Amino acid sequence: MSLREGRGPLFTDHYQLAMAQVHVREGLADRLAQFDYFYRSNPDYGSHQAGFCVATGLGPLLEWMQDVHVTDAEVDALSRFTTSTGAPVFEPAFLDWLAEHGHFRDLVLEAVPEARVVHPHLPIVVVTGPLPQAQLLETALLNMLNYPTLIATKAARIVKSAKGAPTLEFGMRRGPGVAVDEAARAALVGGFVSTSNVQASVALGVQSAGTHAHALIQAWMADGRGELEAFRAFARSAPDDCVLLVDTIDTLRSGMPNAITVFEELREAGHTPGGVRLDSGDLAYLSVQAAKMLDEAGFTEARIVLSSELDELTIWQILTQMADEADREGVDWPRLRGRMTYGVGTRLITSEGDGALDGVYKLVGLQDEHGEWQPAVKVSENPVKVPIPGRKRAWRVYDTRGHATADVITEPDATPFADGQPMRLHHPHRDGAFRTIAPSEVSRVEPLHEVVFDGRTTPPTVSPSASGDLATLRRRCTDDIATLDAGVRRLVNPHTYHVSLDDRTKAVQRELVARARSSVTG
Amino acid sequence: MSLREGRGPLFTDHYQLAMAQVHVREGLADRLAQFDYFYRSNPDYGSHQAGFCVATGLGPLLEWMQDVHVTDAEVDALSRFTTSTGAPVFEPAFLDWLAEHGHFRDLVLEAVPEARVVHPHLPIVVVTGPLPQAQLLETALLNMLNYPTLIATKAARIVKSAKGAPTLEFGMRRGPGVAVDEAARAALVGGFVSTSNVQASVALGVQSAGTHAHALIQAWMADGRGELEAFRAFARSAPDDCVLLVDTIDTLRSGMPNAITVFEELREAGHTPGGVRLDSGDLAYLSVQAAKMLDEAGFTEARIVLSSELDELTIWQILTQMADEADREGVDWPRLRGRMTYGVGTRLITSEGDGALDGVYKLVGLQDEHGEWQPAVKVSENPVKVPIPGRKRAWRVYDTRGHATADVITEPDATPFADGQPMRLHHPHRDGAFRTIAPSEVSRVEPLHEVVFDGRTTPPTVSPSASGDLATLRRRCTDDIATLDAGVRRLVNPHTYHVSLDDRTKAVQRELVARARSSVTG
Repeated sequence: MSLREGRGPLFTDHYQLAMAQVHVREGLADRLAQFDYFYRSNPDYGSHQAGFCVATGLGPLLEWMQDVHVTDAEVDALSRFTTSTGAPVFEPAFLDWLAEHGHFRDLVLEAVPEARVVHPHLPIVVVTGPLPQAQLLETALLNMLNYPTLIATKAARIVKSAKGAPTLEFGMRRGPGVAVDEAARAALVGGFVSTSNVQASVALGVQSAGTHAHALIQAWMADGRGELEAFRAFARSAPDDCVLLVDTIDTLRSGMPNAITVFEELREAGHTPGGVRLDSGDLAYLSVQAAKMLDEAGFTEARIVLSSELDELTIWQILTQMADEADREGVDWPRLRGRMTYGVGTRLITSEGDGALDGVYKLVGLQDEHGEWQPAVKVSENPVKVPIPGRKRAWRVYDTRGHATADVITEPDATPFADGQPMRLHHPHRDGAFRTIAPSEVSRVEPLHEVVFDGRTTPPTVSPSASGDLATLRRRCTDDIATLDAGVRRLVNPHTYHVSLDDRTKAVQRELVARARSSVTG
Repeated sequence: MSLREGRGPLFTDHYQLAMAQVHVREGLADRLAQFDYFYRSNPDYGSHQAGFCVATGLGPLLEWMQDVHVTDAEVDALSRFTTSTGAPVFEPAFLDWLAEHGHFRDLVLEAVPEARVVHPHLPIVVVTGPLPQAQLLETALLNMLNYPTLIATKAARIVKSAKGAPTLEFGMRRGPGVAVDEAARAALVGGFVSTSNVQASVALGVQSAGTHAHALIQAWMADGRGELEAFRAFARSAPDDCVLLVDTIDTLRSGMPNAITVFEELREAGHTPGGVRLDSGDLAYLSVQAAKMLDEAGFTEARIVLSSELDELTIWQILTQMADEADREGVDWPRLRGRMTYGVGTRLITSEGDGALDGVYKLVGLQDEHGEWQPAVKVSENPVKVPIPGRKRAWRVYDTRGHATADVITEPDATPFADGQPMRLHHPHRDGAFRTIAPSEVSRVEPLHEVVFDGRTTPPTVSPSASGDLATLRRRCTDDIATLDAGVRRLVNPHTYHVSLDDRTKAVQRELVARARSSVTG
């Protein structure tokens, strides 16, 4: 077996198998359980912070869940795991169960559709199914949602900072192994227009994008032919959309004049040059100077592509400096801003500043032997780690301006404001902290969950609205972000958007915590 | 096609194809080129810094390179890429070339074997082959070496901080997608004893490790049976090596007493309990208290497994605090330190503090039309970005204590100290900065490169010493780290280990830079 065979159900933590063995042994293999996937805090990059996340990864997760099954070879490998005394780690009865039930065909998932805006503590996915199988899914689900959500969130922020200019994903050379394919998809969901990743683009049915590297110029130089001839060779191969990298020798004294010479030749031959790429130096200063040189030569539409350790903060800073310098240099600032393109790599694909989303998957309910649902809770010394117990629904409440103002968790049979009365929205962890909202302040209440996967049908049912093609996902993301208050969208020190509990959900949580605590102190 | 089909040769940046098209079109498809893979700076995590890296990923890279080939379906997909004017991006002649030559069977790689200690600017891999194919490999090579090297380096640091106690890799839930398999392997290379990743373990032929999660206790609580019964159920399923997670309700008042009850029952049944896991709270304080309780109950060998946002710095801090408190509480400190185990997840797998290795792949030589090698260079405004041009060999020089004291780059026909004379070791980027070392100060000079891959044979030749099984790699890593000066191994503010150029290599670099600069100013 090779590390590059992709994921199966054993793409999981060892302890999931250890627990599943207990479930099977103790007669709990058919008990239905409910697990919630949620995260606790938005990414905090240090000097800047996310005010929301873009839920990403659901489509690939559901596609994967449809047909994976533990293989005989894997069961055989597990049968040879031994304890320190030489006994088998996994009992034959459990391995038989795993060979038969090592799949996700008994699970049902309700979820917030992919590419929507989500917030801390909102149950993004609710998994219901037999306890050991739902447990087994934990690791893969977290893995397949946490990282793409982190990257789509960062991408959406970079798109915002670029103020309408296109952004390209360039991260695969320093990104985390084969996960760069997942990151490319996430970047496109978050609003990037393209990726340099050819394989991911082909798989996703889109076109990859890119220019050329310094190596092209170096090769021509080593061959005694120099930068201008290298540019000419590249232009012969790509006369349309020709973007030339101008910083190999000296951006303003060599790269730009040579690029303009080649652009003039392209223009004479009836082509429209694409533009130039700047990959080092003071990018703001060089952009303004490059724009000036291009304008003087009549290439007012040629684009200026920037790369080199960009992220939302560096783009913001570059734009700020450019605005100042453009004025001083007599360059038309709105036009300059509009002709920019940003290639963003390492800092996007590693989510520079906060490299992991703290998404968790928590047991919140279990059917008892009579088939009654019992809520489950974890009593932690840290109150922020107490999950929202029991079966539930999630809603988004919009104010009279059409802005999303709060997400609310209720019990499954409740609908917010159905009684026409004001509603208390309780803080999920701070007891006694609540806000009251009147029906007159509300323009719309939207259910956030839908059934996105039912593995019990043959073949499994996947809701078409759970995910979608890239254009659909990108639009959904953009539209959802547009409903947020400007303060929540802010790149630095954003307002906190609250996910709240209604009265009954809060009461259940409070009671369960008290009961668990009393089992210790009482 | 799906995103989870693994990598082929199109696991590359778009611009590699754009450049390869130029090479093919301009008659350079058969010109041999040399590219060096190296990185520029050791990871800097902010409050702590790496003094070296552990080169990782070579074995999987070479295995992959042996048999991948661009598929007809991929060529077909690329043939439909269009420019803004609707023209094809890739010409038929190039696509024909790609269908035939879209593989790595014409390349030869010299490299430092996997799991060895490496330093900034040392050419870790030297790729020689036809220009477009060597160019096409760039992205995959960087991707498959940068991330594993980053993670193995972090792992080796965490192993050092644990002072001989075992470390387990637990990162897949918040790690970067499917790359967590590569990270698990890298952690094992860097000295971790096990990983929780079942699939990666099975693929690597090792056993995965893990305990149980809070969910097990929660399920028993929801079912009205409580923590003690959950522990008993787990112990029935895993009577050997039984490690119980004790912080679901209250570590010292519930988890530890219940665990000890179960351990006593296991002992009566003839089993040796494994230990306890602590996943929240003040881990140093709780470890000392847990050790005391276990000792008093006669479980002096039971292990204490810590998890929760650990890395080299938090482990160091925990150990420092534990040393103080153990004394005060009358707990035997060396024994306590020896019974610890550390489960390390997110901060390892994301390389917390520095999420990417800045490895690059630079053209350093090209054959001219007469088959003569011409050195290539990139003249950058930043001198640290000027690569070491031309064909070369790398050596490690050991001092009379047997410590590695410097790596030296020479031309291919030179051997350091072959003439018995003192040698000047030049700084790779600061002109005029050199150190002189006499033969009497040197105990050994070791060549660092070997031919690790020759794709021209059928099947391709992969050197057995290029990589190895995990035990071999881990030993190689440990042995190599042991040759480093203590100052270089230090977790904070390490000494700088220098990679230097000999007189002739330095002269070539200086001359090439001058020639390139004069082409601008002259």
